[in-house]
Amino acid sequence: MYYEMQYRVPYADTDQMGVVYYANYLEYFERSRTEMFRQIGMPYSQMEKEGFFMPVAEAHCKYMGSAHYDDLLTFRAYISEYSRVRVKIVSEVRRGDELLVRGYVVLGCVNSNFKIIRMPQSLVDCCEKCFYDPEADK
Amino acid sequence: MYYEMQYRVPYADTDQMGVVYYANYLEYFERSRTEMFRQIGMPYSQMEKEGFFMPVAEAHCKYMGSAHYDDLLTFRAYISEYSRVRVKIVSEVRRGDELLVRGYVVLGCVNSNFKIIRMPQSLVDCCEKCFYDPEADK
Amino acid sequence: MYYEMQYRVPYADTDQMGVVYYANYLEYFERSRTEMFRQIGMPYSQMEKEGFFMPVAEAHCKYMGSAHYDDLLTFRAYISEYSRVRVKIVSEVRRGDELLVRGYVVLGCVNSNFKIIRMPQSLVDCCEKCFYDPEADK
Amino acid sequence: MYYEMQYRVPYADTDQMGVVYYANYLEYFERSRTEMFRQIGMPYSQMEKEGFFMPVAEAHCKYMGSAHYDDLLTFRAYISEYSRVRVKIVSEVRRGDELLVRGYVVLGCVNSNFKIIRMPQSLVDCCEKCFYDPEADK
Repeated sequence: MYYEMQYRVPYADTDQMGVVYYANYLEYFERSRTEMFRQIGMPYSQMEKEGFFMPVAEAHCKYMGSAHYDDLLTFRAYISEYSRVRVKIVSEVRRGDELLVRGYVVLGCVNSNFKIIRMPQSLVDCCEKCFYDPEADK
Repeated sequence: MYYEMQYRVPYADTDQMGVVYYANYLEYFERSRTEMFRQIGMPYSQMEKEGFFMPVAEAHCKYMGSAHYDDLLTFRAYISEYSRVRVKIVSEVRRGDELLVRGYVVLGCVNSNFKIIRMPQSLVDCCEKCFYDPEADK
Repeated sequence: MYYEMQYRVPYADTDQMGVVYYANYLEYFERSRTEMFRQIGMPYSQMEKEGFFMPVAEAHCKYMGSAHYDDLLTFRAYISEYSRVRVKIVSEVRRGDELLVRGYVVLGCVNSNFKIIRMPQSLVDCCEKCFYDPEADK
Repeated sequence: MYYEMQYRVPYADTDQMGVVYYANYLEYFERSRTEMFRQIGMPYSQMEKEGFFMPVAEAHCKYMGSAHYDDLLTFRAYISEYSRVRVKIVSEVRRGDELLVRGYVVLGCVNSNFKIIRMPQSLVDCCEKCFYDPEADK
């Protein structure tokens, strides 16, 4: 299933066009995937304690609408692909039913020396809990 | 031709992994395309005075290496595609010869009411000046 | 009385010292005073619709401890002084009972042309609801 | 003497009021004091290699004017007070001759375990090079 959380847009996130600055959506993606990982039992801070990190290898955003100051947004995150070496997480930002931004990040897995490693099986098992295929849901 | 500028990484841009936080590269892309537009004779602030805006429709980043605090980075920007309705700008971040991040943004064109419009011919003409095809350069 | 809200520290807010970067506390202050104004019946977005703005004239932060990634912080905000021309808002950041940062901002009042004006009486009346004197509370 | 550098305001730094968001000035202060420390022969990255850090204990900003997108600002930084345990650095932001923001930070000195220590004498010696008293300059 997917994970959802809400977020109130502060002044800090806007730019002079009166909308949320485009780079901030990548911060929004981080907030939602952090909470998603927490919910599936693998908080990111625990990963770091266990000695592995999940750096972003790739990020993508498609901007379909604009969020404004004080909007109460809904962030959705889910895992669309995963293996022992990478996880692809889709993130969506909505205001009510309106989809404003959709994107994804691809995370790799490294140890504390930034050497690429395979993900622990415990993490792979957790991924299943937030695996979601929007097509299958229709 | 492409445009290049330099940038010193401040503490503000780093995260606790000791590297530049991934969303900040989209700010870096903005800095380099702003200067690119200025250099080709179409500063972004002038576009806004003339009543058109270039919102980001799509953004993409591929992270191949990490930038660190106090690194002196080189930002490269060039136009890889353009038409009357959109411009695709490639952005690259290097430390010395090492390519750390490559990405692109696709800009549309809107008027002050956020209605999609065709780009003024004057802007299209400017785009030619920073059009660049890395393949043709080899 | 004072207003309180909670906030989870994202990776985006940390720096390479492994703590929240010092400038981010001013964003935290904004988040808490926005919610405080909403709670006392004068949401900031409504102020803007009514044609007045409350720019920051002065800001101060005292850093006593460090917040870390994934900390669940408590932001407290209250009005310590107010008149027809300015409002002073104290902001505090705690992790549990530990006070990490205390600061304040002084807000003025301007119209949409950035001309200084007196605050509407309706806003002044609202200020009373979040007026708080920590000394009197002891 | 004081140190000065220039900075071009990106879109990222603005908010929907059309001006630089107030927290960003603390990032500007960091940029200017980093370059100031580099110029006086004690780059911050070298301090960290030598095992000491200079966390911010206090920060203050007074906002007298607004910076806008694409403004070419001048950042000035100088040391107004220093001892073995703390350094006070004044930062000013100007557009041409117009002083927009003045503030200061007070830095302490800690080791890599965040224990407060005395500054190395070599750093204290460097401080003299950027000590400046605006009153004495009149």
